[in-house]
Amino acid sequence: MLIVDSIQDVQDMARGAALLGTGGGGDPYIGELFVSTQIKRGRYPKILSCEEIADDALVVSIYGFGAPSPLVEHMLSEKVMLHLLSKAQAFFGRRIDALICMEIGGANSMMPLAAAAVSGIPLLDADGMGRAFPQLEMTTFSINGCRTTPSVIMEETGNVITIDATSNRTAEDLYRAIAVPLGGGAYSAGYSMTGKQAREYGVQRTVTHALEIGRCIREARDGSADVFADLIRCLRSRDNRVAKVLFDGKIVDVVHETRDGWHWGQATLRASNGSTDVCTVEIRNEFLAARINGETVAIVPDLIAILDRESGEPLTGEALAYGQRVKVLGYAADPMLYRPESLAVLGPRQFAIDEDFRPLR
Amino acid sequence: MLIVDSIQDVQDMARGAALLGTGGGGDPYIGELFVSTQIKRGRYPKILSCEEIADDALVVSIYGFGAPSPLVEHMLSEKVMLHLLSKAQAFFGRRIDALICMEIGGANSMMPLAAAAVSGIPLLDADGMGRAFPQLEMTTFSINGCRTTPSVIMEETGNVITIDATSNRTAEDLYRAIAVPLGGGAYSAGYSMTGKQAREYGVQRTVTHALEIGRCIREARDGSADVFADLIRCLRSRDNRVAKVLFDGKIVDVVHETRDGWHWGQATLRASNGSTDVCTVEIRNEFLAARINGETVAIVPDLIAILDRESGEPLTGEALAYGQRVKVLGYAADPMLYRPESLAVLGPRQFAIDEDFRPLR
Repeated sequence: MLIVDSIQDVQDMARGAALLGTGGGGDPYIGELFVSTQIKRGRYPKILSCEEIADDALVVSIYGFGAPSPLVEHMLSEKVMLHLLSKAQAFFGRRIDALICMEIGGANSMMPLAAAAVSGIPLLDADGMGRAFPQLEMTTFSINGCRTTPSVIMEETGNVITIDATSNRTAEDLYRAIAVPLGGGAYSAGYSMTGKQAREYGVQRTVTHALEIGRCIREARDGSADVFADLIRCLRSRDNRVAKVLFDGKIVDVVHETRDGWHWGQATLRASNGSTDVCTVEIRNEFLAARINGETVAIVPDLIAILDRESGEPLTGEALAYGQRVKVLGYAADPMLYRPESLAVLGPRQFAIDEDFRPLR
Repeated sequence: MLIVDSIQDVQDMARGAALLGTGGGGDPYIGELFVSTQIKRGRYPKILSCEEIADDALVVSIYGFGAPSPLVEHMLSEKVMLHLLSKAQAFFGRRIDALICMEIGGANSMMPLAAAAVSGIPLLDADGMGRAFPQLEMTTFSINGCRTTPSVIMEETGNVITIDATSNRTAEDLYRAIAVPLGGGAYSAGYSMTGKQAREYGVQRTVTHALEIGRCIREARDGSADVFADLIRCLRSRDNRVAKVLFDGKIVDVVHETRDGWHWGQATLRASNGSTDVCTVEIRNEFLAARINGETVAIVPDLIAILDRESGEPLTGEALAYGQRVKVLGYAADPMLYRPESLAVLGPRQFAIDEDFRPLR
């Protein structure tokens, strides 16, 4: 068991979650502030490995949904979190034994941590993606047969909705529709599963991985060491997964567009080393594909991150702007995401990219 | 207590509900077929006056929502109705003592009758409008402080949603948003109230009024009497409310437009008597205003109906077409709809008509 009793740990975790958010997933900042305040008050979230819970434990995910920007305006208060948990326990008809992140990338890394801090319910060291994805059904939980619903939705002015959908895809459609009249988004407790399912279907040790990534970037930066060398070492330490700098350059063009509720965009980079190489990164909420001189070098579900080339700070898709000097990082997804049944749900074609998935090398 | 054991009564009721639908509210035909089938099987819906139930009885409304056309494609089955009622009883935590129509006009007149037939739960002889309106919060229940939610939504493939909204206006927004991913619409049990509230806040005796209107039209038609003279007499018999033929003419132009999920339109009529008088009827789902030579002669919430000038059959807004010979009927709304707090919710300005309400004379 890990007890998070340091605000620096929360900040590190948020930084790591931003990298794993691959440019999307929303800003973990509000959640980070919330959890930090809880820690100041002596309420320390507990993190358990999935080995530490019973097979038949009730595990529930806590997540925000909707457009990331309006979600920031939805006050994340103790009252809302406790009310959501209490409604969820009534709805599921029993005590929640542990919480789990639906996605470790971006804002939703912090929601279950916040719920863990205010309630004392432990958070499991796992999630359903090992990164961020834009849709509720794009999880290893869902791919392995867990249901997004039954679920409870709670919005801070007091609207409460429950959903029991016939499929996770319908659940996603319902959530997206409901987000609008709720002012852009709200919080939810869903993806209920057993301890055994969390252990078998979750991407393991991702909460602590976010922490070690964020810590590595901070320590390397403060120690004036080579941030990227340290970071690559840290990422590779995770099951020896491939991690590499794909491109080092300056953003020379960036297109942003909000269409059908998505953030679409493309960033174009020129090399820092004086070569004529051009790198483009495709954005649809997350960074989906990186190409150098037209050749794909990394593609979803592998992770692509864009980081400030000096500080190593991860940048979101929306924050990209002309003139930024950055490094583009490729990081192999968890092997569970490489299975054919996973690629059928979260491979390139699910994002309208007419290309087969090829793993990062 | 009235026991509906005749298919002719159901057909009459549906015809009367179509008139009270003032051109909107959806076609009662599917519900009529459903209830008729139940009657053939010996399952007779029971109708109680609001005087006949206990003050603390649990009364629940059953209604379809969404766009009228797709709703027809949503199979209204015994299974769905029974499942909805059973989910509702579990949700409200007690037995439902009586059902009530949210709106007597159009398709939703038949939904609670269908639920009454399959379940044996009696239907109250009252509704929340005395006509049809397009939005959930446009009811005398809501105006008097009853809440649309908590409510249960059930769609025939098995999606179940519950809503507990902070206001009836938010509930309407949520229902409208949810309708889309559910394929255009679904069925719901909501507007729970006590027997006392149904008695005090409902528009009374509207189920039997629909029956007597439909019966009057049929009998007058079959007896070759003057359909409209009989009909006006029947309508006036209800609390001496004003009822009159506003215009007798031929449709010479009709504009239909589907915009923002509404059926917008305008019908233009020329007089049958050879005069140069022109009548226009404004449509936004329902008929909202009738004007003769530009002067308003009837306006929402008063009822406007357009009927075939020979058979007296009520026509819906969508069915209006060039060349039809019709009579335009004005019928004063229930006095409860004339109160200032009612007009603030369902007066002309709520439908973007910049005009004060003036009662039909």
